[in-house]
Amino acid sequence: MNRICELLGIRLPIVQGGMVWCSGWRLASAVSEAGGLGLLGAGSMHPETLKEHIEKCQAATTKPFGVNVPLLYPQIDELMKLIVDSGVKIVFTSAGNPKTWTSFLKEHGITVVHVVSSAKFAAKCEAAGVDAVVAEGFEAGGHNGREETTTLCLIPSVRKATSLPLIAAGGIGTGAGILAAMQLGAEGVQIGTRFAFSQESSASEAFKDLCAGLQEGDTMLSLKKLSPTRLIKNAFFQAVDEAENRGASADELRKLLGRGRAKKGMFEGDLENGELEIGQIASLFDHIQPVADIMRELEDGYRAALTRCRSGELDW
Amino acid sequence: MNRICELLGIRLPIVQGGMVWCSGWRLASAVSEAGGLGLLGAGSMHPETLKEHIEKCQAATTKPFGVNVPLLYPQIDELMKLIVDSGVKIVFTSAGNPKTWTSFLKEHGITVVHVVSSAKFAAKCEAAGVDAVVAEGFEAGGHNGREETTTLCLIPSVRKATSLPLIAAGGIGTGAGILAAMQLGAEGVQIGTRFAFSQESSASEAFKDLCAGLQEGDTMLSLKKLSPTRLIKNAFFQAVDEAENRGASADELRKLLGRGRAKKGMFEGDLENGELEIGQIASLFDHIQPVADIMRELEDGYRAALTRCRSGELDW
Repeated sequence: MNRICELLGIRLPIVQGGMVWCSGWRLASAVSEAGGLGLLGAGSMHPETLKEHIEKCQAATTKPFGVNVPLLYPQIDELMKLIVDSGVKIVFTSAGNPKTWTSFLKEHGITVVHVVSSAKFAAKCEAAGVDAVVAEGFEAGGHNGREETTTLCLIPSVRKATSLPLIAAGGIGTGAGILAAMQLGAEGVQIGTRFAFSQESSASEAFKDLCAGLQEGDTMLSLKKLSPTRLIKNAFFQAVDEAENRGASADELRKLLGRGRAKKGMFEGDLENGELEIGQIASLFDHIQPVADIMRELEDGYRAALTRCRSGELDW
Repeated sequence: MNRICELLGIRLPIVQGGMVWCSGWRLASAVSEAGGLGLLGAGSMHPETLKEHIEKCQAATTKPFGVNVPLLYPQIDELMKLIVDSGVKIVFTSAGNPKTWTSFLKEHGITVVHVVSSAKFAAKCEAAGVDAVVAEGFEAGGHNGREETTTLCLIPSVRKATSLPLIAAGGIGTGAGILAAMQLGAEGVQIGTRFAFSQESSASEAFKDLCAGLQEGDTMLSLKKLSPTRLIKNAFFQAVDEAENRGASADELRKLLGRGRAKKGMFEGDLENGELEIGQIASLFDHIQPVADIMRELEDGYRAALTRCRSGELDW
């Protein structure tokens, strides 16, 4: 039995990453219905919006789903109370200290998974009593670790640092990629990018079309003096890049970033002035697909990859 | 039959990356004797030094070995002539256009492999007539691509772009890592980091000891305005980082770098003022080993990883 499937009550150890402006109830419930774990991305929702999405998700699926909460969320107390009151059973926390909320959530019977980008923080998660960790590498879209450790290097390192169930994230989008991660010590994967431009994603169609057309090298880790974020290289990215190259301060970058840029880009479809978060693996996929097709391709691809390992083709 | 083994005449599809100040005849011949392909790193050798290393390597092993040539090498004409005259049968080229030298080398019966960091350049290699490509990801030590694509994302992308035999590099140091790369479409791997601090490496003992003690996050891609290079975060790195943060120009960075820094660090053991090139995966290994032990661990680890895939343990 796979520990991630057991812990989360799912058939396939595939978690859809909680993503700002992409992962509302449509996406999360579709992934859960297909046998994975859907996550609502609370980071881009006001508490009342999250409440609505939780209720719609509960109506759309009887299968387990969860909520991703960036711990820097401004009204975090209100949000956590709402999550408990709404009967959510699984919470993925990120961007903060797992000590702060884990015991509160667990006292309310909620399974807690925390996202890390280093083995050191994975060990801290274990001490904080979380149930599992997501280890996310440099190639992932959006917010990212400061050490820039890639998934290929991070997974075996986190595997050595903790005995917790381990979910790999960053750069994974195919069945072969899932098997690669499992081989390196993961017991499940979190996939964001491929779902960000699925049919059920709540992102704007313009953003999804852009993602489906990306080539290798079209994203870059940016905003390193604020919070490192992987972005598509659009006009906003170029402005940040130019500022960073001439040594702009964090304050200057904060002003340049302003407020609401991710919404402007990903939700409203302003492809030049918006902040467009997506992972490197986007370049491997060239069209918008329904979640059911993605999940079937992942499952079939995983089985095909295992079969290839068994066939003798990789022996030497 | 594995295409990389066939092309290079080796038993195990494991290439030891050609590395400045690390890969002389002792390292290369030890890897070739153990069944992989050893490469002399010409980048840090004067032509007469390379000649000596080729002769010593030929005396130390009857098995195939090769030479890695960065195409920006100043006396490149002299070097290429020497390589042909010395009876070298395999050349790995990097850091330049594969068109320039491939036909010359192939006319002299030499197998040519070119190192790339993108699918676009892999396709150019095919057009230039090279025999195989190495695709090297962001996590690799030393000189690195500008697009920062990680091995996990790069390998499937290069696999789609070319039908050439494909060697994966960057972040690979274990048998499970090799199988992960093979799964993603590679047919062999190039490993640098782990051999850089092997007993047979010609690097200084001080550098090797430092590598063996590295933790996750102790390297970073640096010197991006010159040629992006992954370095250990020592005093020299900090000076570059500080200059980059305040927007230093390429010229200023070139002055700060000066000449001979890699020799000073890796060969002479000046751990604070030298340029210390190593990959992220270094943190997974904590002691200096003889090549024979490393090769045995890689081979056994690969077979164990395949066995695990066959065991049903990874089924779900």
